[in-house]
Amino acid sequence: MSVTAAQGFRASGVTAGLKPSGKPDVALVVNDGPDHHAAAVFTSNRVCAAPVTWSKQVVSDGRVDAVVLNSGGANAITGGQGFLDTHRTAELVAEVTGLSAGDVVVCSTGLIGELLPMPKLSAGIQVAAQKLTADGGAAAAEAIITTDTHAKTSVVQGDGWVVGGMAKGAGMLAPALATMLVVITTDAVVDDEVLDGVLRSATHVTFDRIDSDGCQSTNDTVLLMASGASGVRPTTDALATAVTQCCADLARQLIGDAEGAAHDIAIEVRTAASEADALEVARAIARNNLFKCAIFGRDPNWGRVLAAVGTTKAAFVPEQLAVSMNGVQVCRDGGVGDDRSLVDLSGREVHLAVDLNAGAETVTVWTNDLTHDYVHENSAYST
Amino acid sequence: MSVTAAQGFRASGVTAGLKPSGKPDVALVVNDGPDHHAAAVFTSNRVCAAPVTWSKQVVSDGRVDAVVLNSGGANAITGGQGFLDTHRTAELVAEVTGLSAGDVVVCSTGLIGELLPMPKLSAGIQVAAQKLTADGGAAAAEAIITTDTHAKTSVVQGDGWVVGGMAKGAGMLAPALATMLVVITTDAVVDDEVLDGVLRSATHVTFDRIDSDGCQSTNDTVLLMASGASGVRPTTDALATAVTQCCADLARQLIGDAEGAAHDIAIEVRTAASEADALEVARAIARNNLFKCAIFGRDPNWGRVLAAVGTTKAAFVPEQLAVSMNGVQVCRDGGVGDDRSLVDLSGREVHLAVDLNAGAETVTVWTNDLTHDYVHENSAYST
Repeated sequence: MSVTAAQGFRASGVTAGLKPSGKPDVALVVNDGPDHHAAAVFTSNRVCAAPVTWSKQVVSDGRVDAVVLNSGGANAITGGQGFLDTHRTAELVAEVTGLSAGDVVVCSTGLIGELLPMPKLSAGIQVAAQKLTADGGAAAAEAIITTDTHAKTSVVQGDGWVVGGMAKGAGMLAPALATMLVVITTDAVVDDEVLDGVLRSATHVTFDRIDSDGCQSTNDTVLLMASGASGVRPTTDALATAVTQCCADLARQLIGDAEGAAHDIAIEVRTAASEADALEVARAIARNNLFKCAIFGRDPNWGRVLAAVGTTKAAFVPEQLAVSMNGVQVCRDGGVGDDRSLVDLSGREVHLAVDLNAGAETVTVWTNDLTHDYVHENSAYST
Repeated sequence: MSVTAAQGFRASGVTAGLKPSGKPDVALVVNDGPDHHAAAVFTSNRVCAAPVTWSKQVVSDGRVDAVVLNSGGANAITGGQGFLDTHRTAELVAEVTGLSAGDVVVCSTGLIGELLPMPKLSAGIQVAAQKLTADGGAAAAEAIITTDTHAKTSVVQGDGWVVGGMAKGAGMLAPALATMLVVITTDAVVDDEVLDGVLRSATHVTFDRIDSDGCQSTNDTVLLMASGASGVRPTTDALATAVTQCCADLARQLIGDAEGAAHDIAIEVRTAASEADALEVARAIARNNLFKCAIFGRDPNWGRVLAAVGTTKAAFVPEQLAVSMNGVQVCRDGGVGDDRSLVDLSGREVHLAVDLNAGAETVTVWTNDLTHDYVHENSAYST
């Protein structure tokens, strides 16, 4: 049930008319406590949207009472008026819920460079507040999607407590982070300062390791809220494991529904000298258009993998590189390995393994192939 | 007239059967002197092809007598056997021309990860040597192309001397350099040590500033040979200007014929604090798939430009950024500018100008859009 699986939360999703399609486009999630602890991570893009600038301030004291999310407009690169609109959005939520605007996180997603239609959004917030219920998680998850083909939710059961979340994001998926909005809730009892570390360690190995198209968004937000309503205090390790599992589940769903993709590709870089080396190599491969086109064409063109590896500063000796695709070792000792025609790329999921033979670190980054549908969707998005 | 426009050079292009299409695939260029000065720049990809490893050694003493180029196979990531094949290729040229193998540069282009069919290549070199003529430049230019739709040549007339060149390259175009092989000749009299500086300053502002698809090749080579046959010694400035003009002409032709492209996009980053800043910003935009798809769709989606700018470390304040597309200032002071619907993207050439308002440096990088044809060509290349 998404963000309302945990006790202490109400949510709703309504249609305000921001999307031309007439589909739901405003979601509201309220934390009824007793605790109101929160942590969040945001896009590292220096050109960030007004809601990101606002929400960073809201979260900085560790308390969040509600989050309002809209699809149908990113409110990014909209100048002073855009920030005033975000501020006004938080005030509207505060007015109808009786909360303080300074405790209301705002998230927006959609086209960049357009102001939001505030009268419509304002009316939508009124309705969303009226519809808040303890089982509104599904409706909220539905209201935040854009080019996603379906809503993404995840629930992880703890021992007497729960972690649940929702996510949207289908394009501009890249670390750190992807074009995505994620809200995760828990009713676990947890100290304020623990929450931030739990979220950062979870996103580091999940959302930061998906890279659909190398394009970093201006609006990415991952918010974790804790109500304490279960009355149960898990160990930090147990909570971290559950939050990481929830994030991994949502991240995998984002890759599985990325714009136009025909393959989900796990790039496992092994025997690296450091985690940073492994990540650099994995991301270089994930962003190589020629490799991504080859996978779309079911072509085990491993030369493009090594050409991508060669652009990095990672520690390796070219003559010691090895590459496997779906279990077939097509490259051995930096040269030709087993017959590439043995590789079967007909399935949706592809496993690429690259051995640097320079150490003991392993990292997996998920990406997608580059397809006609990706070009189509992204050449026709705003027109 | 390509590489034989300058006196002192003979060239040829023949069909050895390396390409399944049966089109010409082996080119030979010989410098008959009296001088045999040469300089070259190569791919910075750490996974480089056997011919690159070989040719770096050949050029290191500043003397090159001939260059043999083959399409139909890159001889990259082919291990010890690949290097032996390159060495043997140089020896074959030496045998049939009476030169020393250590003065023969070898260039290969085509699919990565396959060994060359040496009997065919060997026979082709025999024929190429027999067909060497002082007007063979056009045939040589034809024999080096792969997915190019036409041969690329350029001639710049000096005062009593000439600079001429040929280039191939249509995919994997990225600094530094593109998947390209370039041979430039001049009959100017020029000192050995001058030649290297002239070539590096020319490629820095030409081939290093085209980035069609962000993918760096394993085989890139730009070779400049000087015969001194004109007997005329130009100033270093005059020669540098001519070589730069020749490189710029060839680079523009490469972008104009890039795989599947429908638009050639000049990304001009202005008022940057440094050349490095301007280049970082221009390349970030050039590699943004969402922006490239938008241009294909004739969609002036400038928000994607600023999202790309925001991923860089360049000096700028988001609120001072400005963007123009084909003369329409769609973004002003980091916010919405003139109506984006005024932008006409129906022509092949697009001019994007980004002002950082952080200094006085300007850099232009050329790229292409991301199209259905790019995906098609690169998903079906090896199969």
